[in-house]
Amino acid sequence: MTGGGGNYFEDFRAGQALIHGPARTVSAGDVALYTALYGGRFAPQSSDEFARALGLPAAPADDLLVFHLVFGKTVPEISLNAIANLGYAECRFLKPVFPGDTLSARSEVLGVRENTNRESGIVYVRSTGFNQRQEPVLSYARWVMVRKRSADVDVPAGQAPKLAPAVDAHELAIDRDLSFETFDRQGTGGSKLFEDFAIGARIDHGDAMTVEDAEHMMATRLYHNTARVHFNAHAEKQGRFGRRIVYGGHVISIARALSFNGLANAWFVRGINAGRHVAPCFGGDTVYAWSEILDKAKPQGRDDFGYLRVRTVATKDRPCGDFPYKAGGDGTYDPSVILDLDYWVLVPKA
Amino acid sequence: MTGGGGNYFEDFRAGQALIHGPARTVSAGDVALYTALYGGRFAPQSSDEFARALGLPAAPADDLLVFHLVFGKTVPEISLNAIANLGYAECRFLKPVFPGDTLSARSEVLGVRENTNRESGIVYVRSTGFNQRQEPVLSYARWVMVRKRSADVDVPAGQAPKLAPAVDAHELAIDRDLSFETFDRQGTGGSKLFEDFAIGARIDHGDAMTVEDAEHMMATRLYHNTARVHFNAHAEKQGRFGRRIVYGGHVISIARALSFNGLANAWFVRGINAGRHVAPCFGGDTVYAWSEILDKAKPQGRDDFGYLRVRTVATKDRPCGDFPYKAGGDGTYDPSVILDLDYWVLVPKA
Amino acid sequence: MTGGGGNYFEDFRAGQALIHGPARTVSAGDVALYTALYGGRFAPQSSDEFARALGLPAAPADDLLVFHLVFGKTVPEISLNAIANLGYAECRFLKPVFPGDTLSARSEVLGVRENTNRESGIVYVRSTGFNQRQEPVLSYARWVMVRKRSADVDVPAGQAPKLAPAVDAHELAIDRDLSFETFDRQGTGGSKLFEDFAIGARIDHGDAMTVEDAEHMMATRLYHNTARVHFNAHAEKQGRFGRRIVYGGHVISIARALSFNGLANAWFVRGINAGRHVAPCFGGDTVYAWSEILDKAKPQGRDDFGYLRVRTVATKDRPCGDFPYKAGGDGTYDPSVILDLDYWVLVPKA
Repeated sequence: MTGGGGNYFEDFRAGQALIHGPARTVSAGDVALYTALYGGRFAPQSSDEFARALGLPAAPADDLLVFHLVFGKTVPEISLNAIANLGYAECRFLKPVFPGDTLSARSEVLGVRENTNRESGIVYVRSTGFNQRQEPVLSYARWVMVRKRSADVDVPAGQAPKLAPAVDAHELAIDRDLSFETFDRQGTGGSKLFEDFAIGARIDHGDAMTVEDAEHMMATRLYHNTARVHFNAHAEKQGRFGRRIVYGGHVISIARALSFNGLANAWFVRGINAGRHVAPCFGGDTVYAWSEILDKAKPQGRDDFGYLRVRTVATKDRPCGDFPYKAGGDGTYDPSVILDLDYWVLVPKA
Repeated sequence: MTGGGGNYFEDFRAGQALIHGPARTVSAGDVALYTALYGGRFAPQSSDEFARALGLPAAPADDLLVFHLVFGKTVPEISLNAIANLGYAECRFLKPVFPGDTLSARSEVLGVRENTNRESGIVYVRSTGFNQRQEPVLSYARWVMVRKRSADVDVPAGQAPKLAPAVDAHELAIDRDLSFETFDRQGTGGSKLFEDFAIGARIDHGDAMTVEDAEHMMATRLYHNTARVHFNAHAEKQGRFGRRIVYGGHVISIARALSFNGLANAWFVRGINAGRHVAPCFGGDTVYAWSEILDKAKPQGRDDFGYLRVRTVATKDRPCGDFPYKAGGDGTYDPSVILDLDYWVLVPKA
Repeated sequence: MTGGGGNYFEDFRAGQALIHGPARTVSAGDVALYTALYGGRFAPQSSDEFARALGLPAAPADDLLVFHLVFGKTVPEISLNAIANLGYAECRFLKPVFPGDTLSARSEVLGVRENTNRESGIVYVRSTGFNQRQEPVLSYARWVMVRKRSADVDVPAGQAPKLAPAVDAHELAIDRDLSFETFDRQGTGGSKLFEDFAIGARIDHGDAMTVEDAEHMMATRLYHNTARVHFNAHAEKQGRFGRRIVYGGHVISIARALSFNGLANAWFVRGINAGRHVAPCFGGDTVYAWSEILDKAKPQGRDDFGYLRVRTVATKDRPCGDFPYKAGGDGTYDPSVILDLDYWVLVPKA
């Protein structure tokens, strides 16, 4: 008998419900590890005092830590036999999560589509994370290429679901307890507020981080993410890339932490419109990042903050002073690009 | 003067009491690091909510984290001058430990026996860990080969103590507050309960983990374990193996975390019958594991759980699909085997 | 636009006030990571129970963790464009810090002095860390060589401030709530108390630790210290040393943890008289340490503890049994020396 085999493409059906277990209590230890792994310095997540001044009971867990914890819960049922994690859409952060909260996850299969080679197919899911009061804290769609157990099995024809090209800013969750009227403007590590960003502006985040194998494995285990390619150097030596692959979410968190340089007051990720892991990242790679302001939006009935739609691009082993992105007219990426992330952040007004 | 020299073989006498200090408070941070280092996903240790539904006040610390913390406390007085950690026996986990509890340790020397080369000898100890209420939480016997300060010193003839070949299942501690009647069967990450395991069944745990030097050193320091061979690459270059040796307990925790695949509901380690570090593990090695169900037992007066006696075998750089163990008729191990652990786990009934 | 550019030499003026943000709440997770990274075993920091017996509400954060957290806060405004961190003086630890406390930092420029090459200059600052009640917890002076944005800019002549060659023992902060009358003498991991140390005594700390890149980067991010040379292997390949440089404070913490062997009851760092990073440390280096008792002092009005003035010297890849320090008559250091730290520690009396 072999334990932990996971699902194969032919095990998925549109409409299928997947329950992921076990639940995972978030602790002050998880938060400290997240800081040690990425170095995030955003004020509300760094200081209980600062968070309380905004109306929160304590410093919330980083939004992306919540994302990774929920994502990790879904791996055993969804992506243990994945060939590639293809994309994200319709991601919304719905409630803040604090140390002491317990996260669980459920998913629904939105659609399946076999590849023409009959050896794999694409599975579309919507996953939702819940806190211990069964309130949804996060919801997102994801599609992933999953191996078939056997190419010979016939699978009913399926289809891809319709997913929104972006989250409408008016659908982003608003926490009514939060207030951005009176926070200490000098205590955030950055001076730029919502009004200071123009659509089209580009920011080189300047710093960079070299990824160590010990770091990405500790992160990925912290998230209960058991995808094998991240952990087994012995098997991966014979694998596609000859070595362990860094969990894509690790790169997202590095890029987000780097973005503090220039986006220090982009305090909360409220939605992810689209995300693509353009190329794999490996231990020893150095990750740089830059961002572009794609759009700005104002929430209804609130005048103390706004939303920036940001594209953050991460590269490996290449500084971002000249904003590397798509290289030629054909839409292909610069060979250094490893992440293309399009998301909404909340930024307080002046 | 040189600090921290530790005891040598001739410093030990049967009956001697050893007090280990300082005490160590277990925190939510220790628990998070343990998760990041091994990726354990057992439900009661992962979720405060799940633990409370069993009657516990919160998620307990992983049993093996408690083992390592108590073991680490004993190193300065017992094994700083050890050549090899030879074995464990009569290990029982007596009380759950929670973040906020403070652990201390005491040991008694059970016996000593000089080696014929007069350069070292075997020291047998029983170590007990206590919480801040002086309740024993863990007790185990261990024997270790310790250097003599000088081969010339005459040491009185001693003898090995009699140790039980296995812990009797009826002597395993039962926590009366725990109840396994009503837990969420879908929320544990595994479907197999006590009734689903047959004696003799073998499970390949499938996953594997490559060990990094940064990881095992962080783990070993977390446990206050100061044995030098784990930390000093400069001196070990001239040592027996030419490099740092991974703390054997690190391999035990990796194997236990891997065993979730197939043994997801083996929630608590209640006893260790025997443990042997068959071969050393080094940074860069990839650890695989498989288990065999050796025996089953039922606790007196309880019908909601049972005990599985499990042998978990860990290998390095070798998958376990064919259950590598002892290679030939002569009882020698397959050269890939690094750990042979025989222990009792508590598994709820259906 | 480039984010996070930091100040250059010509941006500093004597008397200038610098506010550092954001604040940082210390958690049990930070404390656990600090233990995992250095392995400190001092009793009051290891055990809530032990700390309470001294009159503290809980185990305090390690003094040097507090130092690093405050130091890290100051990096963006002071040393992002530093060439070298030259020295520390007049450092006093003023209040214990506990998990749950929130640290912020402010600095004052004490003086500036341009280098004759006009390409850089030395900036002298006094930095102070505060808790959430705005009580100072730590104050220190530091001088650092900072690049000019342009050699062509004329900078007014400045001068170095007068800094005390050592902190007067009578100016060290005394916590009136602390009492060392009744603690468990057997539970500290070391037998030597204040009376057992003679001025001039030297202690080889025996153990050593090999530094891994993953470790020093996790530490440095934990401290919110963003100095680039620690994180970017890709850029540092073209840099001064061809690789990432370990944050000097990481070496201080390793040396302090190693000093437990021999100085187990040197529980609190109360002041730092002088500190010098004599040579850089890199991933893969093995750090050894030894200490000398430089002086002893008694606090006014207290008879339960004393202060030891200690010099701790750290080397790389060289054992310290013969106390390597300054090599010849000309005051140059032995080539193995990387740290020369002169500080006051509190040690209880018998």
